[in-house]
Amino acid sequence: MKGEDRFVEKLRALLPPSERVRIGPGDDAAVVAASGSDLVLTTDLLVENVDFLPEEDPEAIGRRALAINLSDLAAMGARPEFFLLSIAFRPERGEEFPLAVARGALTRAEPLGLDLVGGDLSAAEETVVCVLLGGRAEGELMTRAGAKPGDLLFLSGWPGRAAAGLRLARRRGRAFDSVSSPVSTALSPEEEQELLSAYRDPEPRLTLGLFLGRERIAHAAIDVSDGLGIDASRLARGSQVRVVLEQERIPISRAVASLANAEAEDAMEWSLSGGDDYELLFAAPPIFAPRLEEGRADWGVPVTRVGWIEQGSGTVLRGPDGEVDVSGLGHDHLERS
Amino acid sequence: MKGEDRFVEKLRALLPPSERVRIGPGDDAAVVAASGSDLVLTTDLLVENVDFLPEEDPEAIGRRALAINLSDLAAMGARPEFFLLSIAFRPERGEEFPLAVARGALTRAEPLGLDLVGGDLSAAEETVVCVLLGGRAEGELMTRAGAKPGDLLFLSGWPGRAAAGLRLARRRGRAFDSVSSPVSTALSPEEEQELLSAYRDPEPRLTLGLFLGRERIAHAAIDVSDGLGIDASRLARGSQVRVVLEQERIPISRAVASLANAEAEDAMEWSLSGGDDYELLFAAPPIFAPRLEEGRADWGVPVTRVGWIEQGSGTVLRGPDGEVDVSGLGHDHLERS
Repeated sequence: MKGEDRFVEKLRALLPPSERVRIGPGDDAAVVAASGSDLVLTTDLLVENVDFLPEEDPEAIGRRALAINLSDLAAMGARPEFFLLSIAFRPERGEEFPLAVARGALTRAEPLGLDLVGGDLSAAEETVVCVLLGGRAEGELMTRAGAKPGDLLFLSGWPGRAAAGLRLARRRGRAFDSVSSPVSTALSPEEEQELLSAYRDPEPRLTLGLFLGRERIAHAAIDVSDGLGIDASRLARGSQVRVVLEQERIPISRAVASLANAEAEDAMEWSLSGGDDYELLFAAPPIFAPRLEEGRADWGVPVTRVGWIEQGSGTVLRGPDGEVDVSGLGHDHLERS
Repeated sequence: MKGEDRFVEKLRALLPPSERVRIGPGDDAAVVAASGSDLVLTTDLLVENVDFLPEEDPEAIGRRALAINLSDLAAMGARPEFFLLSIAFRPERGEEFPLAVARGALTRAEPLGLDLVGGDLSAAEETVVCVLLGGRAEGELMTRAGAKPGDLLFLSGWPGRAAAGLRLARRRGRAFDSVSSPVSTALSPEEEQELLSAYRDPEPRLTLGLFLGRERIAHAAIDVSDGLGIDASRLARGSQVRVVLEQERIPISRAVASLANAEAEDAMEWSLSGGDDYELLFAAPPIFAPRLEEGRADWGVPVTRVGWIEQGSGTVLRGPDGEVDVSGLGHDHLERS
């Protein structure tokens, strides 16, 4: 039996039985039972040196790959049901490498009752992981369109933590880097852990996203994957409105502030342009503000009002010195980071 | 607007309207209308230097990426409906590169009424294309399980043509290669074209696959992507039967025979172990043999009886000198080619 077939046998042994899956990994295609709801589909590529460091643990890569896709479904208010996982990697790593990636993805999938139904393997010089995640609409689907003048803008969690975590991970990966020692002294061990986890193991805001869709609270939503500035501007463009972010309301975690200070960086800049946060940014009528700002316990993350929607176009940050255009602040997938 | 957003705008301009697509490219996820049929899903990664040569035209890469996935759906007897296309590439190529890949995929998609609904872009050193193709069951789904002792084994087209075409493409890519001149004299221009097309632009056997499923003719089917030997052995294992291939019945195209001769290679070896053919291999009761062998005009490719199914296990080639195990002949995705 060839390596790929052995891989599929070992993978199948990891999968719990599921009524939804008529044909799982190992045939020409997977078959998922029909359902009366519309199908919601998202896909993300993760590439070595772009989305994760070469020395990253393969289980962490798999777990993160699934989390990023789950975040997209959270931003739609859709319930995830199944995924396909494709992995390109250096063959000398053997089948243990893709199996570890799959195990990592399954640690995210199983608590959600999410089925791994198929995928593909290929040899490559750089590791690339491609996840396709499918789910079903539940309640109203949220898109980037629909935000209305008069809506308030809300954000879950703390932007910039993942960017700070990446900075920390890079420092740690280079023991020879002379700047590395000040970093650890600037942060408590808990703060270091907070930032590293935000980067390596982001928590998709599924409970919040499903709540927003089911209760028809958000007029529009997006997940902040590339940076608060750029993703806010996508919401503005999708809804044909103007987004105003209020500088004093952007929540900066103490760990981000401490690290930015130690690194002589601007924490607000990290918060606006750092990608990989996978928080939800959404527009909702003011009437929902109290419920949203008090619901932390319900969805495991605080929600902060960070601005508002008005007529017009563009995305600005309003601060003590007036307004600045922040629509370009973030990560462009067409540029090498 | 960032490069990825510009790409999405240009991509959307290429897409015809579709009633099936509720939300297409450009939001956090795509939404496809519900249907009462089971969902059939397949995915394939194509990697530079493994699945295509670095100098390959991006439209050809896109067209081929979709064809390979269509072949998987053909082998299931499922009708393709939508796909997602993700592309990792060197950013200095600009957005024109992924647009060309998408245009190529669309040349395959549009005649089939198949919708491009989403995808992802990323920077990478090596080009990687990941397609997720979804469709619906039509009639009976064909899997690798279900072949029965007494069934005959049928194959569409001619195995080994893609392997011969790859050899030719590599020769052509290296003008400095001293072996390159004899190649062109061994083949007519039409034969060269036949082999190059088989490799670069394989024709998925959708019409045949849909016919086999709809008419409930095949007990089991697989597409020959990794090599006739290895894929026949997957069908044998999936159905828990023994596959016997008859050497004298394996159809060798004249172009393959000529090139093998010129290269001092064994055409039968190419036919058994050359991957990338994307022909259909299937088991069906003997009663269907005349219909299958005379139906070339109906599905645009001849179907040849190449062996039979019997009780037992394993996959052998029976020739004048007895039987040889061919279950290992083919391409292993866990080895660098």
